[in-house]
Amino acid sequence: MKRALGPNDRLYPMPCPLVVSGTMAHADALACAWIAVGGATPPTIVMALRKSRRTLELIRQTGEFTVNIPRASDAAVVDYFGLVSGHNHDKFAESGWTLEPAAVVSAPLVAECPYNLECRVLSEVDNGSHVLVIGQIVESHAEESVLDENGNVDVELLDPLIYINGSREYRRLGEKVADAFTAGTSVKRA
Amino acid sequence: MKRALGPNDRLYPMPCPLVVSGTMAHADALACAWIAVGGATPPTIVMALRKSRRTLELIRQTGEFTVNIPRASDAAVVDYFGLVSGHNHDKFAESGWTLEPAAVVSAPLVAECPYNLECRVLSEVDNGSHVLVIGQIVESHAEESVLDENGNVDVELLDPLIYINGSREYRRLGEKVADAFTAGTSVKRA
Repeated sequence: MKRALGPNDRLYPMPCPLVVSGTMAHADALACAWIAVGGATPPTIVMALRKSRRTLELIRQTGEFTVNIPRASDAAVVDYFGLVSGHNHDKFAESGWTLEPAAVVSAPLVAECPYNLECRVLSEVDNGSHVLVIGQIVESHAEESVLDENGNVDVELLDPLIYINGSREYRRLGEKVADAFTAGTSVKRA
Repeated sequence: MKRALGPNDRLYPMPCPLVVSGTMAHADALACAWIAVGGATPPTIVMALRKSRRTLELIRQTGEFTVNIPRASDAAVVDYFGLVSGHNHDKFAESGWTLEPAAVVSAPLVAECPYNLECRVLSEVDNGSHVLVIGQIVESHAEESVLDENGNVDVELLDPLIYINGSREYRRLGEKVADAFTAGTSVKRA
């Protein structure tokens, strides 16, 4: 039996990267759970940013941003990036987290985040309270310590932070339950 | 030390809902990991669909769709929905999963998925290989068995399926690591 809960903005689960804009000299960042891959060719990111965000102002100035996946163990720092505004806080100075130069774009990477995407804005879509920013992924980086012997990201080693809205909590990834593009082959009924 | 991995379409982690379009009499569904909340006012979903998808054709016919969160234990069925095409498979007949009427939109809900969103298309954005579909969330539903005593979704009871691209695996949610909008208050350095 199901219960109607009304319109809401909950999807389960959500990633929780830090989105960074600006430059090495003057950067801002926010925690953004409303973000997804937007396409394969070219590879893109789509994310929803509240219109008042300082990070959005800087994205508009440079046309570039980075997406930085934090470890689950760093939930408190990520939460801090979501709690205060770049309009009146230097989030990096206050948190102690550090920036490092990206390879292609002017927006820096977060050194403490073990996986990072570099993005260049393709377009913006007005979406009510939020703006959808669509950015092409032009480079990615991972810490050597989260790569397996084939040079691919090992998600157990990455231990990415997860956000749950509604109950407003951070979680880590749990156990593997199946292989994709394999588990389904046994499902079809005769 | 970080290693550059080139442009790619990986974000960690991703949700893995079934998106359903059409009607009770003629529906199709696909597994969509490239999906996020797109805004708060109005509440919206944004998702990337490959242009050839039968589900997209049906969304364009009716202007409506549903988003259905599966349990981690149902990974094999969800994988099946991603493996075959609605152009030549009746995925519901073959999987044994069932549809139930939504409250507001013509697109049905997946009965076996314990959390469901009803959506009405606001716009489409061409995005290369994919189309971004932006839909307003007009109703939501949850199984009574995944609600806590206050009528809110308990994510431990929901046990939502998670998709990891790159390594192409399904996982479940792990342990809670922090409370959001709380953990960060201790971070600011003097």
